[in-house]
Amino acid sequence: MKYVSFLAANGTETWGVAIDGTVYDLGPTGKNLAANVRELIENGAFGTELDLSGAPTIDEAEITHLPSLTNPGKIICIGVNYLAHQEESGKTGQTAPTVFTRFADTQMGHLAPAVKPASTTKFDYEGEMALVIGKEAWRVSEEDSWDHIAGYACYNDFSVRDWQKAASQWIPGKNFPATGGFGPYLVPAKDLGDVNKLTLETRVNGEVRQNAPVSNLVFNIPQLINYVTAFTKLNPGDVVVTGTPGGVGLFWGEGGLLNDGDVVEVEITGLGVLRNTVKDEV
Amino acid sequence: MKYVSFLAANGTETWGVAIDGTVYDLGPTGKNLAANVRELIENGAFGTELDLSGAPTIDEAEITHLPSLTNPGKIICIGVNYLAHQEESGKTGQTAPTVFTRFADTQMGHLAPAVKPASTTKFDYEGEMALVIGKEAWRVSEEDSWDHIAGYACYNDFSVRDWQKAASQWIPGKNFPATGGFGPYLVPAKDLGDVNKLTLETRVNGEVRQNAPVSNLVFNIPQLINYVTAFTKLNPGDVVVTGTPGGVGLFWGEGGLLNDGDVVEVEITGLGVLRNTVKDEV
Repeated sequence: MKYVSFLAANGTETWGVAIDGTVYDLGPTGKNLAANVRELIENGAFGTELDLSGAPTIDEAEITHLPSLTNPGKIICIGVNYLAHQEESGKTGQTAPTVFTRFADTQMGHLAPAVKPASTTKFDYEGEMALVIGKEAWRVSEEDSWDHIAGYACYNDFSVRDWQKAASQWIPGKNFPATGGFGPYLVPAKDLGDVNKLTLETRVNGEVRQNAPVSNLVFNIPQLINYVTAFTKLNPGDVVVTGTPGGVGLFWGEGGLLNDGDVVEVEITGLGVLRNTVKDEV
Repeated sequence: MKYVSFLAANGTETWGVAIDGTVYDLGPTGKNLAANVRELIENGAFGTELDLSGAPTIDEAEITHLPSLTNPGKIICIGVNYLAHQEESGKTGQTAPTVFTRFADTQMGHLAPAVKPASTTKFDYEGEMALVIGKEAWRVSEEDSWDHIAGYACYNDFSVRDWQKAASQWIPGKNFPATGGFGPYLVPAKDLGDVNKLTLETRVNGEVRQNAPVSNLVFNIPQLINYVTAFTKLNPGDVVVTGTPGGVGLFWGEGGLLNDGDVVEVEITGLGVLRNTVKDEV
């Protein structure tokens, strides 16, 4: 099942599931099974069987996507977590995960513009896989970690490199508005199967920039959940963005970074294609 | 006026003002002027004249303090922002503020234990001054910055140094539960006057470890608000923790770091004394 958060025709937030190009509205403007996907997760109903009968339907091409979760709790991002990206950035030999955060108001949905701030000359993509927590997670063992994951989505951790590197801590460069692409679908973990069999690919104007199996993660998903929940409690609706492979724009060479009009796609097996077009801030 | 958030006798959250050792309950268990201090700020009523008539009173010594804001929005922390701390940590020459974040669930009030995680041998204090945003702030000039500040409080950014330095980004070492001391009072900006005349002092078991005028900030408050609001919108109830002076435990030498039973106080002129006793996690 593919869950989507979107704007209904009346401009308010709703959510539903996408099946063969049709979206069944199950949110406030439709069957109203829950106010939003986070509430569905908190209710324990995410990924369970859905009654679609009587749900209003919309052509998927007609909807305005919102971030896969519109009201996430903590957004935990992992840095330099693929070997090729560690190598290109000169950061091999990591002995612990690199953890930073995003605020929820940095996020946007599939097809929404990725806004290049007026104050940067170094706007970049980072294709990543995000996971969403389904069950409270505090001091969780690697073995038990999978039980705490509700689902997965594509993520683009657009990065403002000059602001990221202006000081030792990256928060400014990772928290401009409309820089966290999240979608198009949130797919239940049980539907996706073994994440180590998935491949992540990022394309800019159709050119492949990043391509790696998710199994290449340096700190894998159980290790990340174990590490993060050693210092902070994760709750249903929290997000962990797992890191980007080699091939970011900063190290791509001439023309690697992003400009107005560039179309950036992140595709992960079974999770669809997240597409955002870069737009200069006006 | 000194605003306090606290637990009422019935165990629920409330808030009030402290005058000469008496707390007037103006929250849900008292006059119910607002659900909490953040709501009071959002309503524009924080720092305005209060009608205390008929408010239930409690001896200040009897209350259980909560963090000055129990439900803050963004918590923006500034690192290495006093010259003496830059020097002791080998980080002089900063050309931009160092920005990291805390989650709200890391915070505790005056007199609550500061919990030393079982997984650390390097638990440390950082006495700081926090400011709370009173009015939406986005792309705010230095000149206009003061208009966006509701008030100030003492803060202790207790730091888990081994987790902070395990990778390049500090988030894990700054986000264990019960490590963000915030209080005892939130004081309206207009009552406090010129913050550059204030002095910050941190004591451990009575020994002075940090003592500096707030005017020693490398990036001053207008510069911080201008910088932060260049990348993220601040809203009423958001917090900016402005950085710690020289004298942290890590560089103090023998016995500098914290152990179970250590009493840590942060005192700032006009903002009272924030006292937390270190307690080993069990």
